[in-house]
Amino acid sequence: MQTELSKQLGVEHALFGFTPFPAVAAAISRAGGFGVLGAVRYTDPDDLKRDLDWIEAHAEGRPYGLDVVMPAKKVEGVTEADVEAMIPEGHRRFVEDTLAKYGVPELAEGEASGWRITGWMEQVARTQLDVAFDYPIRLLANALGSPPADVIRRAHDRGVLVAALAGSARHARKHKDAGIDIVVAQGYEAGGHTGEIASMVLTPEVVEAVDPLPVLAAGGIGSGQQVAAALALGAQGVWTGSIWLTTTEADLHSPALTRKLLAAGSGDTVRSRALTGKPARQLRTEWTDAWDDPAGPGTLPMPLQGLLVAEAVSRIQKYEVEPLLGTPVGQIVGRMTSESSVQAVFDDLTRGFERAVDRINRIAGRSGPS
Amino acid sequence: MQTELSKQLGVEHALFGFTPFPAVAAAISRAGGFGVLGAVRYTDPDDLKRDLDWIEAHAEGRPYGLDVVMPAKKVEGVTEADVEAMIPEGHRRFVEDTLAKYGVPELAEGEASGWRITGWMEQVARTQLDVAFDYPIRLLANALGSPPADVIRRAHDRGVLVAALAGSARHARKHKDAGIDIVVAQGYEAGGHTGEIASMVLTPEVVEAVDPLPVLAAGGIGSGQQVAAALALGAQGVWTGSIWLTTTEADLHSPALTRKLLAAGSGDTVRSRALTGKPARQLRTEWTDAWDDPAGPGTLPMPLQGLLVAEAVSRIQKYEVEPLLGTPVGQIVGRMTSESSVQAVFDDLTRGFERAVDRINRIAGRSGPS
Repeated sequence: MQTELSKQLGVEHALFGFTPFPAVAAAISRAGGFGVLGAVRYTDPDDLKRDLDWIEAHAEGRPYGLDVVMPAKKVEGVTEADVEAMIPEGHRRFVEDTLAKYGVPELAEGEASGWRITGWMEQVARTQLDVAFDYPIRLLANALGSPPADVIRRAHDRGVLVAALAGSARHARKHKDAGIDIVVAQGYEAGGHTGEIASMVLTPEVVEAVDPLPVLAAGGIGSGQQVAAALALGAQGVWTGSIWLTTTEADLHSPALTRKLLAAGSGDTVRSRALTGKPARQLRTEWTDAWDDPAGPGTLPMPLQGLLVAEAVSRIQKYEVEPLLGTPVGQIVGRMTSESSVQAVFDDLTRGFERAVDRINRIAGRSGPS
Repeated sequence: MQTELSKQLGVEHALFGFTPFPAVAAAISRAGGFGVLGAVRYTDPDDLKRDLDWIEAHAEGRPYGLDVVMPAKKVEGVTEADVEAMIPEGHRRFVEDTLAKYGVPELAEGEASGWRITGWMEQVARTQLDVAFDYPIRLLANALGSPPADVIRRAHDRGVLVAALAGSARHARKHKDAGIDIVVAQGYEAGGHTGEIASMVLTPEVVEAVDPLPVLAAGGIGSGQQVAAALALGAQGVWTGSIWLTTTEADLHSPALTRKLLAAGSGDTVRSRALTGKPARQLRTEWTDAWDDPAGPGTLPMPLQGLLVAEAVSRIQKYEVEPLLGTPVGQIVGRMTSESSVQAVFDDLTRGFERAVDRINRIAGRSGPS
């Protein structure tokens, strides 16, 4: 499965896998795809360094990349305390009342929240980049707009390609104007921050909007048929994320969450502002229902909402409070019904792709050499 | 573009085109696809007879079908007047106030509303069937659940295949259990009544759920790339609708509406209950905004909403009151940028499909005979 982009990056298959887990990223790259480590949770640069060392030791020299979350708009001189002070008291009460209703225990004294707003702030992302540019990363992706111009320059100086996610053709054109190299077209069905346009419509629109830049299709991809469909739509590769969450190499730290993911159907996700203040697809839970309930206080804008719920989400995850327990994931969750190794998921994608190509050739009346 | 289903129906391409316009249906069949006439607007059986005669005279012997709207749940002995009586006065006032705000003129004395609830009721659909079964239709599609068992039997006795739309795998399995022959998987991005699951995820789910029944993919299809993608996802054909609305053979009776469709982008639709009481994708207008506004009275359940707004929608359409003027249409509306003939749109689909197959073969490293 070779496109110009996969050749440029020196990978066997045009399959990109985004994951917060170094073991998954390395395994995707070893399998012949392109592993991308999500950096948002690394508030301590030493942790990121440790995990990049681990990937270096386990990727067998295959290329990999890093995904950061740099807000497009710079907020000068604003501290976390300033943002904290902007959160209305009623919203804090709503969080506490909801947690109390479900009997969610508190974190231990001094225990850090695993989900911190700081990871969303440009300064932290820059610290991550200072670490990452010491490693031979081949791709830098940004999940929140185009990275700042100096970051793009710094990446290009090191021969690192820059990718950015887009949920509309307009958004994608802005990335192109900013000088990025690859656009990830993030369809409505995708996990995490998404727009309203489904992949079937979005992918070709973005391909046309940023031509000749390569486009990766994201959203709804968990089988070789879906890989073939995304490539038929003009993408130069696929950007997957959800399907790696239930691999044996993934470390969700919560058997209950893994069980919920394996049990969920494609209709069990919701595009909610509950997690960050911007619409992000995630498992629908009683937590997202509470935030989306018109009778409640509603969500706050980014970055307030993320800061408001940070500790609550950590508590829910740590104590595995099932009705509230969720995670960003796409509609493809319905296909994630058993735990398997990254290699097995990868093989399923590549073999399924070949079968889909066979089928499309039969339909087109072509007797290819298959 | 041949699948088992297209062979069974004797058409050259597995391209199904749904349209309310006989001239479009006939042109799709003539071009080598399968035209399906939407019957919902035919409250007078003689009108349907006239238009089926027209198709017979212009389809050059090619197969075609009919699409009816039979509610899955039978409502015994309920008249239109009974339903009228269930509409709250506040909702009627909201309709009148909104029309007055935009200065929408009244219909002339005795002028019929073009959009009638009656077309949604089983009795009317049965009258349509009595007419249609006198014609050599090859397919009967139902947009609202499985048709009643006796209708399926009647169709099968005449060698007519029965199709039904589904927005989820669960819904599709119910159709299979009811004995229908073809499931149309209606993705989130589609025009008209839709669920929340996007085509990329829905199509393969439905294919697996109803195997070995053939599935048609609907939603987001307006180019040959999208046709190829839908077929890669396991569909035995595509079900298109929106893209025929701006063909020269279509007769929207409103140049202003055609202009709006040609100008709209993929982000200019909304899944709203404004038209029928169930979520249906349509152009977003100040009319849908008014119904979706939390400050308003909100929509009524089907069939009340459709009855409530019937005359209002007719008035808006007749007088082309631009801010309120809309129509059911899918996200593919962003691709509909110029009027062309049905044949030209059809050729674009089939040629684009061949190019998409070429591309996917190059990516797969297959040197097919193209």
